[in-house]
Amino acid sequence: MRLAELSARSGVSMATIKYYLREGLLQPGRRITATLAEYDEEHLRRLRLVRALIQVGRLPVNSAREVLAALHEEGLSRNRQLGTAVWALPHGPAPDDTDPATASARRTADELLERVGWSHGGEPPDAPDSPPYQMLVTAITTLTRLGYPCSAADLEPYARAMERIAVDDLNLVERYAPDEQVEVAVALTVLYEPVLMGLRRLAQARESHRRFEAD
Amino acid sequence: MRLAELSARSGVSMATIKYYLREGLLQPGRRITATLAEYDEEHLRRLRLVRALIQVGRLPVNSAREVLAALHEEGLSRNRQLGTAVWALPHGPAPDDTDPATASARRTADELLERVGWSHGGEPPDAPDSPPYQMLVTAITTLTRLGYPCSAADLEPYARAMERIAVDDLNLVERYAPDEQVEVAVALTVLYEPVLMGLRRLAQARESHRRFEAD
Repeated sequence: MRLAELSARSGVSMATIKYYLREGLLQPGRRITATLAEYDEEHLRRLRLVRALIQVGRLPVNSAREVLAALHEEGLSRNRQLGTAVWALPHGPAPDDTDPATASARRTADELLERVGWSHGGEPPDAPDSPPYQMLVTAITTLTRLGYPCSAADLEPYARAMERIAVDDLNLVERYAPDEQVEVAVALTVLYEPVLMGLRRLAQARESHRRFEAD
Repeated sequence: MRLAELSARSGVSMATIKYYLREGLLQPGRRITATLAEYDEEHLRRLRLVRALIQVGRLPVNSAREVLAALHEEGLSRNRQLGTAVWALPHGPAPDDTDPATASARRTADELLERVGWSHGGEPPDAPDSPPYQMLVTAITTLTRLGYPCSAADLEPYARAMERIAVDDLNLVERYAPDEQVEVAVALTVLYEPVLMGLRRLAQARESHRRFEAD
């Protein structure tokens, strides 16, 4: 298909597609003449992912480029590809190891992973320097510093719930062909975050209603 | 306590506390002399919440002020207070009703709430114009537009998981005295979001390892 059709089918304007091409976020089309190129379904899929990352996930162009690079690392198992791509997603501020609360947060995170059986003796996928682990440590540090509950016991039910959610996530991913799965996993990780946060607030409203409406 | 002690105990600098006082995010202390004021535990609690909203939740000052105002609305039941405060939290872009995908997303959201038994015939807590409902509709619209799975059946397991999480959330909140619960609920809603997202990515890594590492 030509650029105009790629734009129509993806809902992304031609100007934006050209910008993504210039920034290397979208692979160039097959040149037909000096001014015409041909695009295919793979361009369409990639464009969908770029939109998910940039417009929904609000990733800066540089981070998006890193995520996309991870999709094409050679010689990685599908598991490693998935991990590399999802871990390239932004994960907020790194833990501040000059803060004494950080050391205690690391112990809490380790105790939590131990409790739920996610520890791998420091090996991937749960290595202590992995971005999601760091995200968790930073969040626990903040909770500790502000004095809110965040012991390993407090966090355990949340980890269990996320274990079930990850099964649902991977079930959705496995509906796709193997060569599409990494792209879909990245997109769904980002796109389902607002779904989950919206559902959590609705569920809180219901649970609060159930407990307190009689007050 | 004096301003210096409030600063030491909260970990918030005196300059920032003065800024919060000027912006009306923190109630003034009890005046002792023209230049000295006395602060109490309630100031400390409020300061903790303001930090959670502004520094962690990245709320603009105006949104934080709205959330705080909701905490003190008179004559509301505890349930309504909780709802009002949590709903004043930012919830992303409102659904774009000029987009035909929005109408279809609303139907999906309604079907989902019906399936999980959260429908209240348009009454609170799940009124169709509530912020969390709008958050959900916007997220479904995006998924639909980008062609990713988001039928009511796809979303149902996520809603069930959030139902269990909301029970855990309210259990944490009920550890506090009734007059602290609304503040705590707002803080935990915001502060637990990065915890949940970090745990989800760790759980995805584990589940992907389990399914694909043999590849």
